[in-house]
Amino acid sequence: MVEDRDPEVPGLIASLRHRAGRATVAGITGPPGSGKSTLCDQLIGHWRGRGERVGVLAVDPSSPFSGGAVLGDRVRMQRHAGDPGVFIRSMASRGHLGGLAASTREALRLLDAAGWDRCLLETVGVGQSELEVMRAADTTIVVLTPAAGDAVQLMKAGILEIADIFVVNKAEQPGASRVARELRELVHQTRWSSPWAPPVLQVVAVRGEGIDELVTAIDNHHDAVIASGELRSRRARRLRAEVEAIVVERAGERARRALTDGTLELDDEGELSAVDPYSLADRIS
Amino acid sequence: MVEDRDPEVPGLIASLRHRAGRATVAGITGPPGSGKSTLCDQLIGHWRGRGERVGVLAVDPSSPFSGGAVLGDRVRMQRHAGDPGVFIRSMASRGHLGGLAASTREALRLLDAAGWDRCLLETVGVGQSELEVMRAADTTIVVLTPAAGDAVQLMKAGILEIADIFVVNKAEQPGASRVARELRELVHQTRWSSPWAPPVLQVVAVRGEGIDELVTAIDNHHDAVIASGELRSRRARRLRAEVEAIVVERAGERARRALTDGTLELDDEGELSAVDPYSLADRIS
Repeated sequence: MVEDRDPEVPGLIASLRHRAGRATVAGITGPPGSGKSTLCDQLIGHWRGRGERVGVLAVDPSSPFSGGAVLGDRVRMQRHAGDPGVFIRSMASRGHLGGLAASTREALRLLDAAGWDRCLLETVGVGQSELEVMRAADTTIVVLTPAAGDAVQLMKAGILEIADIFVVNKAEQPGASRVARELRELVHQTRWSSPWAPPVLQVVAVRGEGIDELVTAIDNHHDAVIASGELRSRRARRLRAEVEAIVVERAGERARRALTDGTLELDDEGELSAVDPYSLADRIS
Repeated sequence: MVEDRDPEVPGLIASLRHRAGRATVAGITGPPGSGKSTLCDQLIGHWRGRGERVGVLAVDPSSPFSGGAVLGDRVRMQRHAGDPGVFIRSMASRGHLGGLAASTREALRLLDAAGWDRCLLETVGVGQSELEVMRAADTTIVVLTPAAGDAVQLMKAGILEIADIFVVNKAEQPGASRVARELRELVHQTRWSSPWAPPVLQVVAVRGEGIDELVTAIDNHHDAVIASGELRSRRARRLRAEVEAIVVERAGERARRALTDGTLELDDEGELSAVDPYSLADRIS
């Protein structure tokens, strides 16, 4: 329903809102091929072992060309597919772009209200839209590999600002320690607005090595952001983004309606290039 | 000014609108590494030889991680950098996503009004946001290589629907004829809403082979869409998108203002998860 922008969603969310607020959302982002899905698979296994119910959203905002990757993700998490305590859903951009971050936030709200303890939010790429999606997470894990490890690229991507935990995956490969060291230096040089400085963990996800440490780091981060009040301010920021997205979506609908139902007729015979889009917009907004 | 969302842009566009409408916009899209910039470089050379002034926008909506690619593009077109008849500008997503397609449309308007005969719009990737950017083109060229050539992927990406001309670049490589044949079959099987069926050209951009044919195909397409009235309907669609983007941008500004200036106070002490974002949105839009 959320993905189809079903008109009943607002009512549903309003009626479920008193049930929400218990789930924690861990986000996993990183370049393609960094092993995010394998990492998700390991985390799911760990949390299931503790008896927690896990909801996973694999979000692909960037490219319809990578459709295969999303499918691959789900295949990699397949061993959990029959487990009623695990819910896995791939979400891809359907037509309008800005909508995906909003749909993700709504889907997380519903998972939360439905009693899922842990939500895992995985993005397929590391672009601007992935950053936007990741803002819905309480704890953001940035995954890199020895191959991908260029700290300068990271800074460019604005990834550093959103990282709460760094994972150097495929840590058995040459160069892993160098990447981890570079990251630690980067973390050390950065002034953080919160008392939490992101740890840098070396992990071999396919073998399950370093997963315990990652789980502990996620819990520690969660405790730290509750204590510092940052969890609350993050969630307030998220709520603001949600409100903004709803206002924007409604305005877009209003504009599309006005432009197609005749309220705002484009003179199809006149000179289009002489039309000022701003004065047309004035008549809608 | 357009990229910075300068408040003077609307007035500027309104005052220049009577000068606009003469430039033609060719768009070039395709996967990374397909040689789009080399192709642009060749087209620029060709058009400059005819005495036309060429404005180039290289747009990268997808990933800050590919920042290097944009730079690379500009380097590849460097030989035209000193030519006053060529304007080259890289545009990347600054923060808000939806804004880039709108900025691109406005930048094209200004290039047009400033008397540039040819506009070239290049996108770096082939995702959903690139598709959105590409809708600003009068003629869309989709570039593939023997390596990238999977027709099924294309259809998934919605690329087929926007292609006016297919270029199989690096046609000296093995597999080029097969990809070209697959594309021709795909074109043949598709019902086109217009009388124009996209030609499939084999090109070796680095050697300039096939560029004359491409230039001719662009001209032919332009003549065909004028004759069929499709150019007009495309431009009307583009104007509608532009109006919609302005309405949406303004709504977003309104929402952000209300959420920060106290018009719409989030009760920072209350239970955030119990707040219904839809009723907050009601109070803004």
